Amino acid sequence: MKILVLHGPNLNLLGERETEVYGKVNLDEINNRLKRLGSKYQITIVTLQSNCEGELINFLHKANDEASGVIFNPAAYTHYSIALRDAIAALTIPVVEVHISNIYSRESFRAKSVIAPVTIGQISGFGLESYSLGLKALLNHLDFLREE
Amino acid sequence: MKILVLHGPNLNLLGERETEVYGKVNLDEINNRLKRLGSKYQITIVTLQSNCEGELINFLHKANDEASGVIFNPAAYTHYSIALRDAIAALTIPVVEVHISNIYSRESFRAKSVIAPVTIGQISGFGLESYSLGLKALLNHLDFLREE
Amino acid sequence: MKILVLHGPNLNLLGERETEVYGKVNLDEINNRLKRLGSKYQITIVTLQSNCEGELINFLHKANDEASGVIFNPAAYTHYSIALRDAIAALTIPVVEVHISNIYSRESFRAKSVIAPVTIGQISGFGLESYSLGLKALLNHLDFLREE
Amino acid sequence: MKILVLHGPNLNLLGERETEVYGKVNLDEINNRLKRLGSKYQITIVTLQSNCEGELINFLHKANDEASGVIFNPAAYTHYSIALRDAIAALTIPVVEVHISNIYSRESFRAKSVIAPVTIGQISGFGLESYSLGLKALLNHLDFLREE
Amino acid sequence: MKILVLHGPNLNLLGERETEVYGKVNLDEINNRLKRLGSKYQITIVTLQSNCEGELINFLHKANDEASGVIFNPAAYTHYSIALRDAIAALTIPVVEVHISNIYSRESFRAKSVIAPVTIGQISGFGLESYSLGLKALLNHLDFLREE
Amino acid sequence: MKILVLHGPNLNLLGERETEVYGKVNLDEINNRLKRLGSKYQITIVTLQSNCEGELINFLHKANDEASGVIFNPAAYTHYSIALRDAIAALTIPVVEVHISNIYSRESFRAKSVIAPVTIGQISGFGLESYSLGLKALLNHLDFLREE
Amino acid sequence: MKILVLHGPNLNLLGERETEVYGKVNLDEINNRLKRLGSKYQITIVTLQSNCEGELINFLHKANDEASGVIFNPAAYTHYSIALRDAIAALTIPVVEVHISNIYSRESFRAKSVIAPVTIGQISGFGLESYSLGLKALLNHLDFLREE
Amino acid sequence: MKILVLHGPNLNLLGERETEVYGKVNLDEINNRLKRLGSKYQITIVTLQSNCEGELINFLHKANDEASGVIFNPAAYTHYSIALRDAIAALTIPVVEVHISNIYSRESFRAKSVIAPVTIGQISGFGLESYSLGLKALLNHLDFLREE
Amino acid sequence: MKILVLHGPNLNLLGERETEVYGKVNLDEINNRLKRLGSKYQITIVTLQSNCEGELINFLHKANDEASGVIFNPAAYTHYSIALRDAIAALTIPVVEVHISNIYSRESFRAKSVIAPVTIGQISGFGLESYSLGLKALLNHLDFLREE
Amino acid sequence: MKILVLHGPNLNLLGERETEVYGKVNLDEINNRLKRLGSKYQITIVTLQSNCEGELINFLHKANDEASGVIFNPAAYTHYSIALRDAIAALTIPVVEVHISNIYSRESFRAKSVIAPVTIGQISGFGLESYSLGLKALLNHLDFLREE
Amino acid sequence: MKILVLHGPNLNLLGERETEVYGKVNLDEINNRLKRLGSKYQITIVTLQSNCEGELINFLHKANDEASGVIFNPAAYTHYSIALRDAIAALTIPVVEVHISNIYSRESFRAKSVIAPVTIGQISGFGLESYSLGLKALLNHLDFLREE
Amino acid sequence: MKILVLHGPNLNLLGERETEVYGKVNLDEINNRLKRLGSKYQITIVTLQSNCEGELINFLHKANDEASGVIFNPAAYTHYSIALRDAIAALTIPVVEVHISNIYSRESFRAKSVIAPVTIGQISGFGLESYSLGLKALLNHLDFLREE
Repeated sequence: MKILVLHGPNLNLLGERETEVYGKVNLDEINNRLKRLGSKYQITIVTLQSNCEGELINFLHKANDEASGVIFNPAAYTHYSIALRDAIAALTIPVVEVHISNIYSRESFRAKSVIAPVTIGQISGFGLESYSLGLKALLNHLDFLREE
Repeated sequence: MKILVLHGPNLNLLGERETEVYGKVNLDEINNRLKRLGSKYQITIVTLQSNCEGELINFLHKANDEASGVIFNPAAYTHYSIALRDAIAALTIPVVEVHISNIYSRESFRAKSVIAPVTIGQISGFGLESYSLGLKALLNHLDFLREE
Repeated sequence: MKILVLHGPNLNLLGERETEVYGKVNLDEINNRLKRLGSKYQITIVTLQSNCEGELINFLHKANDEASGVIFNPAAYTHYSIALRDAIAALTIPVVEVHISNIYSRESFRAKSVIAPVTIGQISGFGLESYSLGLKALLNHLDFLREE
Repeated sequence: MKILVLHGPNLNLLGERETEVYGKVNLDEINNRLKRLGSKYQITIVTLQSNCEGELINFLHKANDEASGVIFNPAAYTHYSIALRDAIAALTIPVVEVHISNIYSRESFRAKSVIAPVTIGQISGFGLESYSLGLKALLNHLDFLREE
Repeated sequence: MKILVLHGPNLNLLGERETEVYGKVNLDEINNRLKRLGSKYQITIVTLQSNCEGELINFLHKANDEASGVIFNPAAYTHYSIALRDAIAALTIPVVEVHISNIYSRESFRAKSVIAPVTIGQISGFGLESYSLGLKALLNHLDFLREE
Repeated sequence: MKILVLHGPNLNLLGERETEVYGKVNLDEINNRLKRLGSKYQITIVTLQSNCEGELINFLHKANDEASGVIFNPAAYTHYSIALRDAIAALTIPVVEVHISNIYSRESFRAKSVIAPVTIGQISGFGLESYSLGLKALLNHLDFLREE
Repeated sequence: MKILVLHGPNLNLLGERETEVYGKVNLDEINNRLKRLGSKYQITIVTLQSNCEGELINFLHKANDEASGVIFNPAAYTHYSIALRDAIAALTIPVVEVHISNIYSRESFRAKSVIAPVTIGQISGFGLESYSLGLKALLNHLDFLREE
Repeated sequence: MKILVLHGPNLNLLGERETEVYGKVNLDEINNRLKRLGSKYQITIVTLQSNCEGELINFLHKANDEASGVIFNPAAYTHYSIALRDAIAALTIPVVEVHISNIYSRESFRAKSVIAPVTIGQISGFGLESYSLGLKALLNHLDFLREE
Repeated sequence: MKILVLHGPNLNLLGERETEVYGKVNLDEINNRLKRLGSKYQITIVTLQSNCEGELINFLHKANDEASGVIFNPAAYTHYSIALRDAIAALTIPVVEVHISNIYSRESFRAKSVIAPVTIGQISGFGLESYSLGLKALLNHLDFLREE
Repeated sequence: MKILVLHGPNLNLLGERETEVYGKVNLDEINNRLKRLGSKYQITIVTLQSNCEGELINFLHKANDEASGVIFNPAAYTHYSIALRDAIAALTIPVVEVHISNIYSRESFRAKSVIAPVTIGQISGFGLESYSLGLKALLNHLDFLREE
Repeated sequence: MKILVLHGPNLNLLGERETEVYGKVNLDEINNRLKRLGSKYQITIVTLQSNCEGELINFLHKANDEASGVIFNPAAYTHYSIALRDAIAALTIPVVEVHISNIYSRESFRAKSVIAPVTIGQISGFGLESYSLGLKALLNHLDFLREE
Repeated sequence: MKILVLHGPNLNLLGERETEVYGKVNLDEINNRLKRLGSKYQITIVTLQSNCEGELINFLHKANDEASGVIFNPAAYTHYSIALRDAIAALTIPVVEVHISNIYSRESFRAKSVIAPVTIGQISGFGLESYSLGLKALLNHLDFLREE
């Protein structure tokens, strides 16, 4: 089984920018950690990042043919990209939305996700742990992982 | 270590009411599953439910003295109970907010949580799995559990 | 057949407070009148009042097992108690919402009911008569009463 | 005593259109049922319907001279006809607002009545029964009917 | 020269309804007073009233061919009839909007006129005097009356 | 097959009023052009215009029995006539909404159509061509016309 | 009898600025015209102008002791000066609000007057004629002038 | 004379929680200070606290029979408890609303009190001093204390 | 020690205007009463009033050099004068906001204070007593007065 | 003559995703159908699709030099891409906006087009027929096609 | 050539108040720096400051006769003074709006300027440099300064 | 020192499109003018333009490593690109926002910048001069240029 972990705009700077908000771990470390977790469950983790809304849509479309599910951190696009929302609504595979910071305790415009209504669920605020929780949630949803 | 799992209004009816939204598992089954998960991690899980905003506040106040963290499903109070928000803001122990259904894909008034800004994070939409994910997130936050 | 007549916050003061808005009849007289009406139809009328949102939820949950329907005056909770709304949505028995005063000719915040969407209907403005009209509406809905 | 039962726009199609919302009974049946109920109480029921806001205003003006009260289902005009509101405010006889469907559980724009603040009360959601409940409420208000 | 004085919905009840708001003078008296004022200025005053939005539109269309200007009290239609607004925008003759009561010191919904932007001006609050002031304003605008 | 082309308020003035917005063609020319187009397709085009909301509703009700579809330009009623919306929702025949001007590039209140949600589609901005495009769209929808 | 004609901010520039909106007549000409009109009615017209909100308040306070009524063009203060509103509410003499331009056909923020609710009425859009109409309205209100 | 000092939700934690907002004095100290102040004025101070909206309503109802006035800090319920508002409106004794912190310099949702319109006045921002100022204000209102 | 008591617009009319809202005591009596209270505490009370926003700002700036604190009733400026807000924010001495009437039980626009967020606290609704309570609150804040 | 048919985000999935909303025809079939229609009119149809806002802007810029007009389905970008709006406003060739589904009968956020104000017109709701109607509208606008 | 540099309310306190927002340079230093810059360009810089809206209007009116342009920092009046906006709209000389702090990164009410729409442009956020940039922008606009 | 001048969507058309809004100078001329200005100050000016939000983000990320500051005209993205906002917030080098037209005197949606709060300042309305003013502001901020 293959799972796509998709990172949205500016997440390539993780660990460098605004570390008081997003922590000091960089994207490679997150990706590696998720891949190790994947190995443990005997699934393949593919990781992609883009700052371009259109490219993120392309990645989601392609995932529909090649992967069983998506962990998606839409970052700033969370709040206005109806195009990404429509892309997810068009998929037949499940998508879990994750956020590193607690988007509900920041500027008021961050409290609204246009993406969440078309995902199976959202995890927000647990730092890089949000990704591994998201992966577990997705695998449970796919009935792949059913540990207590 | 002791963790309080706190269930808000109407959750006592779980498994009976609106099963197309909330699933068929009842509250006892959720609680037992969490307790078994607790045993595995060698922590004590205490579970409480109340339909009364004031009693939920009392439970949270008491947890501050007796527990190391709280998994809280505020149910309908999510959307308007500033009193519960203030109770959480007053705690020194961390609180994780969980929801069984995806509150962002239902009526528009459910998309707003007055609780989330004062929690460490929110998990929404994964059915009863939201609770066990919440427990893992909380234990990670407490540096108790640091598996990949 | 048993019907629960449930009175919300401050209705225990009926006949004492703001009589220019709510009239001079007190709660006992309303309850007695409804019980006499019940006798006429050979049904049992149970009456309860509480100022506590949580207790009102408890009463509604219990009614689901013991009664065939509910006449509910949510009073001030009409305008914000999503918890009561969810309690009613969880019932399998029908609920009729009644108001003594015309809530649409008072302060603007009273024109919004968060309860009404999950009831079978709402009756507002007919003084204590709102309750007996509500009872007839409920019995009709239950196919118990089918007079012209 | 004479009572006007006034039906607003599109109610002439009752029983034909959107029967899942409005039921299968047509307007003649409702009118006849109300007339039989009127006979029982020894009052005259006059029924009128119009799709035209101006004609409905004319009917209300005329009723003020000829009838003792009005049962009014303003249908779509409920939500924006300030002209009908002003017409009712100008009457010296009482008006009861009735709705067949529960206007609070439909599109959000239907939750607002510009008419209700100038009526003695509103009854919504009980199908054709809304009319007979409205008639009883009106007769009670007129002290004509004072059964329990 | 001919001037149309056009009265909107419910104004036929003037002098009878809500006399604390609209005064005790009836429509005939207003019309006669305006006609006498017309005689003084050697112009013809035609007066029309309708409760029907469509008929008011017809009157305005016809006035464009037969009159030199319009004094219009749109009453309740002031606040929502875009159809009347469009009718006035389509005229080549000037229209003055008048109101008997001060629409800005009543319910908040009366403070908005959808008609005013397409008239030459608005006069509000001077009782029946609003009409004669409106007539003078119109005649001035038409360069017919240029007294100090 | 018979198609009703229904024109709303003030459209009788077409070609006379605000020609910079609506063009110089009058209603008769539009109607004749549509009738010729109808002949070509061997269908009967009936054209009606009214300034009265209630009469437009009556025309729509009658069309349901006599025609196979409606081309409707609701003009100003587009923006507030819930009564017309309900009339269309009650029809079993399809309705296409057309506008001569681009309603989205004018005053902001014209950007909202309360009618559109219950039509099969909307065509806006192509001058009198909007009507013939609407006719083709309707005939396609009825599977009458299936040219490329 | 003495009447105060009070001009608000920037009206000292009348006839110089934005003549396409406000016309070419300057403030002295308006004042002289009103004084001549005053002579005709045998009343004294006092005219004052200020750009300062506080000074306008002082003028209104003083007028209460010395004049029988006020014609007031609050200009830009119309839209936000609650202090001027309170000053007028505190007067025992009547105030008529006048505007040279039609404030309802300009920027949307000009459509709201915080002053109008405490005046006896408002006249808007008739150029300098608004002042003489206002004077007539005021004199009528004071029962000084009762011509047809 | 007896005065009720009523503390709302979470105030039992005073001196423990968020001391940078609410100060370091705990509830017992506040209560004792008020009781000493009461002794000085020869009145009895009764103090109560509850986290439960319903219980606070009960306390207010009971105070109406037993006390001469109430000092009430509704805490979080300030912002949404229409039930508490209605309870106060139903009392015949006066209520003074007090707040320890300046509710107008915190989150925007705290700037709105649904309680204030039915109290005699509100005191906000003076720390524990808000209570003693409230007591003096109440005694003055009761004409009990009339020092300078 | 010197304290400035600053009165905003229209307060010079106190005791004359709208006495049902503001009471019958005039400004001199309030000022004298405060001065007597000042003597008792051995502090100097300076009182100023202005209807002009700019002059009030000047008074506040000057007070910063000469006084130890300010009691300020901004009257109508409460609701929109960001300039006064900025003036207070720029002071190093504390300001207490007072209101004679309960601003929360009047027109809705009076429920918002742009001043309150930069004061130490607000006292509203206790008639002239609001000033003496404000003085006590200020002296307490300055640690000058520490009676119970 | 050359016409660009431009498809926005996610339209490459047409016929695969959400077929209950968008129908079962895929993008190639739509394009081919339009090309055949183009042949009939002896014009060249160029078709492009992109998920990237920036690339769509590039396509529009290039079309200005190479094509005579554009049929544009902006899909999700309809609702927020001011960049696409500005791109269209900058073109000298006309653009027709088309939508497969009726955007006015779906989620409320889809009822707003930021694109429509700068197009010549909009066609919404006729399935793939929206494109051929759009082509005819465009050719008519270009005076290329003037059939009845 | 003469340029007016006009400073709005509270700017006389510059360098003393809130130095973390506005910096430590005082108004004299800013004025002197601008005058030196003026000498360099051989133009006369006149500087004025007032806390009074009305006086600022007077200064602007007078500048129209005596100066070639205005650099204006409206400070708090930026956000609500429609009177200042109208004063600027009435000038024939150009006005540049400047702000010391970045008004878009402070309280949300500061993000709106009612002044900007009638100026030639706005410069915000560059400390005292905003003034010299504003001067250069103004001189460029006046074609006086055309360095690269 | 190197400075990036970054141009957002549609600015490649400058000098061609809507010249009444944006002027007749094209992008090359602006860039060359800035480069000449750079030479004068002995700094390197790099200029980039993209219509793609994602590419603009990439350019900003790269600038952080290679340049000392950015002059950014986000054009249409100003109003909604939270992704660009986050990109700027993540930079350690300063960004100045510039606009050719006065964005506050155009459509209301252009009055809001989601970018401005994270820049050091904004310059709007001075045509191509906005760029050179922006450059001077940036160099001043970097303490590179400190001319008067």
